[in-house]
Amino acid sequence: MKTAKLLLHCPDKPGLIAELTDFITVNNGNIVYLDQYVDHVEKIFFMRMEWDLENFLIPVEKIEDFFTTLYAQKHDMHFKIYFSDRKPRMAIFVSKMSHCLYDMLARYTAGEWNVDIPLIISNHPDLQSAAERFGIPYYVFPINKDNKAELEQQEMKLLRENNIDFIVLARYMQIISEEMIKSYPNNIINIHHSFLPAFVGAKPYHAAYTRGVKLIGATSHYVTTELDAGPIIEQDVTRITHKDTVVDLVNKGKDLEKIVLSRAVQKHIDHKILSYKNKTVIFN
Amino acid sequence: MKTAKLLLHCPDKPGLIAELTDFITVNNGNIVYLDQYVDHVEKIFFMRMEWDLENFLIPVEKIEDFFTTLYAQKHDMHFKIYFSDRKPRMAIFVSKMSHCLYDMLARYTAGEWNVDIPLIISNHPDLQSAAERFGIPYYVFPINKDNKAELEQQEMKLLRENNIDFIVLARYMQIISEEMIKSYPNNIINIHHSFLPAFVGAKPYHAAYTRGVKLIGATSHYVTTELDAGPIIEQDVTRITHKDTVVDLVNKGKDLEKIVLSRAVQKHIDHKILSYKNKTVIFN
Amino acid sequence: MKTAKLLLHCPDKPGLIAELTDFITVNNGNIVYLDQYVDHVEKIFFMRMEWDLENFLIPVEKIEDFFTTLYAQKHDMHFKIYFSDRKPRMAIFVSKMSHCLYDMLARYTAGEWNVDIPLIISNHPDLQSAAERFGIPYYVFPINKDNKAELEQQEMKLLRENNIDFIVLARYMQIISEEMIKSYPNNIINIHHSFLPAFVGAKPYHAAYTRGVKLIGATSHYVTTELDAGPIIEQDVTRITHKDTVVDLVNKGKDLEKIVLSRAVQKHIDHKILSYKNKTVIFN
Amino acid sequence: MKTAKLLLHCPDKPGLIAELTDFITVNNGNIVYLDQYVDHVEKIFFMRMEWDLENFLIPVEKIEDFFTTLYAQKHDMHFKIYFSDRKPRMAIFVSKMSHCLYDMLARYTAGEWNVDIPLIISNHPDLQSAAERFGIPYYVFPINKDNKAELEQQEMKLLRENNIDFIVLARYMQIISEEMIKSYPNNIINIHHSFLPAFVGAKPYHAAYTRGVKLIGATSHYVTTELDAGPIIEQDVTRITHKDTVVDLVNKGKDLEKIVLSRAVQKHIDHKILSYKNKTVIFN
Repeated sequence: MKTAKLLLHCPDKPGLIAELTDFITVNNGNIVYLDQYVDHVEKIFFMRMEWDLENFLIPVEKIEDFFTTLYAQKHDMHFKIYFSDRKPRMAIFVSKMSHCLYDMLARYTAGEWNVDIPLIISNHPDLQSAAERFGIPYYVFPINKDNKAELEQQEMKLLRENNIDFIVLARYMQIISEEMIKSYPNNIINIHHSFLPAFVGAKPYHAAYTRGVKLIGATSHYVTTELDAGPIIEQDVTRITHKDTVVDLVNKGKDLEKIVLSRAVQKHIDHKILSYKNKTVIFN
Repeated sequence: MKTAKLLLHCPDKPGLIAELTDFITVNNGNIVYLDQYVDHVEKIFFMRMEWDLENFLIPVEKIEDFFTTLYAQKHDMHFKIYFSDRKPRMAIFVSKMSHCLYDMLARYTAGEWNVDIPLIISNHPDLQSAAERFGIPYYVFPINKDNKAELEQQEMKLLRENNIDFIVLARYMQIISEEMIKSYPNNIINIHHSFLPAFVGAKPYHAAYTRGVKLIGATSHYVTTELDAGPIIEQDVTRITHKDTVVDLVNKGKDLEKIVLSRAVQKHIDHKILSYKNKTVIFN
Repeated sequence: MKTAKLLLHCPDKPGLIAELTDFITVNNGNIVYLDQYVDHVEKIFFMRMEWDLENFLIPVEKIEDFFTTLYAQKHDMHFKIYFSDRKPRMAIFVSKMSHCLYDMLARYTAGEWNVDIPLIISNHPDLQSAAERFGIPYYVFPINKDNKAELEQQEMKLLRENNIDFIVLARYMQIISEEMIKSYPNNIINIHHSFLPAFVGAKPYHAAYTRGVKLIGATSHYVTTELDAGPIIEQDVTRITHKDTVVDLVNKGKDLEKIVLSRAVQKHIDHKILSYKNKTVIFN
Repeated sequence: MKTAKLLLHCPDKPGLIAELTDFITVNNGNIVYLDQYVDHVEKIFFMRMEWDLENFLIPVEKIEDFFTTLYAQKHDMHFKIYFSDRKPRMAIFVSKMSHCLYDMLARYTAGEWNVDIPLIISNHPDLQSAAERFGIPYYVFPINKDNKAELEQQEMKLLRENNIDFIVLARYMQIISEEMIKSYPNNIINIHHSFLPAFVGAKPYHAAYTRGVKLIGATSHYVTTELDAGPIIEQDVTRITHKDTVVDLVNKGKDLEKIVLSRAVQKHIDHKILSYKNKTVIFN
């Protein structure tokens, strides 16, 4: 079954759902999924709708144009349409820790994710062998203060050549430049090893240990130019006790990080996330 | 703001959402909430919709009739409409344990719940003083094998006289007769002190202790004629260890039970639950 | 069974457990509980031990003296001994919200807690009726900037007259003065309605809403002179979504707050908490 | 640092901790870890103790003999001693699903686990490539009703030749024979994809879907001759809704299963589990 997925938001007004579902129905589309939400504070309407394209009267290549003309302009809408036969292309950035990388590669190899992963990029050679186990090209860019601008240009060239749609920072211990962030708006997913906004920045497990918290967390979010402050996609926590050392926190945290990151990536691949004003709407 | 809440289910077909939302919109109703769901296995469409009645063109007393004629018959629909100015009336049944009772009375007294609680019924006098603290009439029916049929008739008469809409069994340690259950279909809420379907029946904490589980649970469900087998509304668990005795389980379980029961009752009061084939659809 | 509970910490060295358990055993005490822990970073030994006093050879009133002379001085120990027939005395401070107060009073009235609650103090009259339902004296001190010093003196006099051992701030929306904090070191328990150290200070639910977190939390901690920065006793979180408004967060948070606070108070009553360097050791 | 780990249980009596810790201390051992627990119902004392062997006066090869003579016989003790320089040897059994296997191999390869994994056994060829990615020999025994007895003999021969200490059934969809189970008492770890004792046996996710539960679980346990009824090591749950199909449950369950199984395996590798009367004591 080939489907289209439409994600949109616009100022709320009465009749939007009736009008938008009618668009699909009268054109012989069969809605297989619909979720909508109204932010009554901002007065914004959000919707995600998926429909079967088999008997849909509007040709695939014209849907975006028709939708823009008939609805988007009229309702001041922001929207995106994705088609199920176009797999998103994902790049993974890693440094030295393997747990998130292995977790994603295992899902990818088992066919759990409708995604292509044409390459892995790192600032260290350490995980070359992990990439090779799964037959994915691994590129090392040993970024430091002096060569950062130049090597990021090379990275971005490589990403463009591989038609990368989005980037996953799988415990990548480098700050991404503003230029790269702006090239992939809401398309760079990071995993931060704390329950944000607690413990922003470096060494959150050390900070958690020092503060004596009773739960540690992990947060997956879109990267924006402000450090660890982008729209949050997913968070979770696990219980610790006074007996846990920093090393215990790091180890317990690994399980959290990989699950939280993979949940976020899965939602992104399935086009279930809409960002608005530094927050995310996560559709069912 | 006076609103109407419509809950319905019917065989799924294309165009239902457009048609139903259109009904509100063309009659000048403003939809303040909509949630729908399609069970693709059973091919059933479920919806919950709430709209502002202020400018709604159809008079309140005729909405049900109009809806039946225009939609329900045509689409083989089951539906219910609730109006926000009609508070549901709830009876609480208790035995000797007070934790669920106090939790509900505290919410009720603080005005958290849009409900009336005109009476508490018990098979024991123990919680009379708890009821008195909150000024709610407390009736004791000391049910035993011999007088059960007769006392239940008296209970049902009392419930009818008080226009009770639904009953909450707050650790009521008596089995309700089939007749009473059938008089309140999907309107008797029980809290069972286990993670159902594990540990059905009496003494689930003892059974959990003997089995050596690492989590204990609580389950809130609608009562049907099969013991502990009705549609589940809400469940939760808490971690235990080998160090916990049966008494520890009972104590840890109390917090679970009261929270799980109160969450279920709140959803019921807010008309967010639809039962279908021994399962619940819980709207957002 | 009358027991003694000993909590202690001292610099770690080999043989401490053998020596300390031997003290009980040779004096005909029967250890009913023992938990110990070594902080290998700080090199500190922590222990909690409870023993049956029935045949214990050392008279109750001399245990502290003997223990000081025989062990504490020798090992540079800090320790406290509690006897099971001495109920701790607890004061509750509230403002306007009742959920934590009711939760504690329900437990107290049901006999779950081995504590006396001789009084409730508030800066508002709102919860007078709640206190009256449970027959506990309620004192209003309408503190403001101008009268704070004077009224706190009156509060402290009242606390002393009632032999209060510890204070629970059950959503008390006033900052306690340094003098009062220092009079009850590690004996003032607060509930903060966030997952500390995230969202310190006022209006944490508003801050959580603005940041777009996917979990909200509550934290119970001992009060120190630095706001919301004292030793954490207990934390927990609950999942939220983009659909939750600030009001939803406040309501979902109430359940968290009362459970987290009551768990902390219960541990304090049971003398299961040792504070060390702004962190807590929580014994089993 | 080379250490010894002692796990034991025996009938409880006063003075055991003092006596046993004294054994280490007087022989110049330094206790780096101690956890004990008394089951007051069964009146059984459980202890786990780890000490540095560097200056320990009793030679390693004589410790077991000395301990037996001096303590075990006297106190009717069951005990085991493990030395940190002897890595346990683990075999993994799989069928067709890869998620648990990959999770364990990723941890193993990253050096998180102090274990050797000399082989993987399967009744299907499907995961051969997964094993090859990590360079671990993969043996297929296509067991069916007719050849089961014979192929299990071959499997057991292979396990013996590889000095396997314990077996992990990582979603191995075959029932192990009584003979094999008895050859590895408390040394075969299974992951069952439900919250046991709910949904014992085949197709638990289908059963969970049909029952309409609001949480699904996973349980790791030692295998005994009664199906899914052995001592539970670890359990966890995750929230589902009416929207989740059986396929959704299977997918959400995978994350649970792999984490719950890996937690159990880690505790087994670290010798933190003692089984007693079909329940486990899990030391910190």
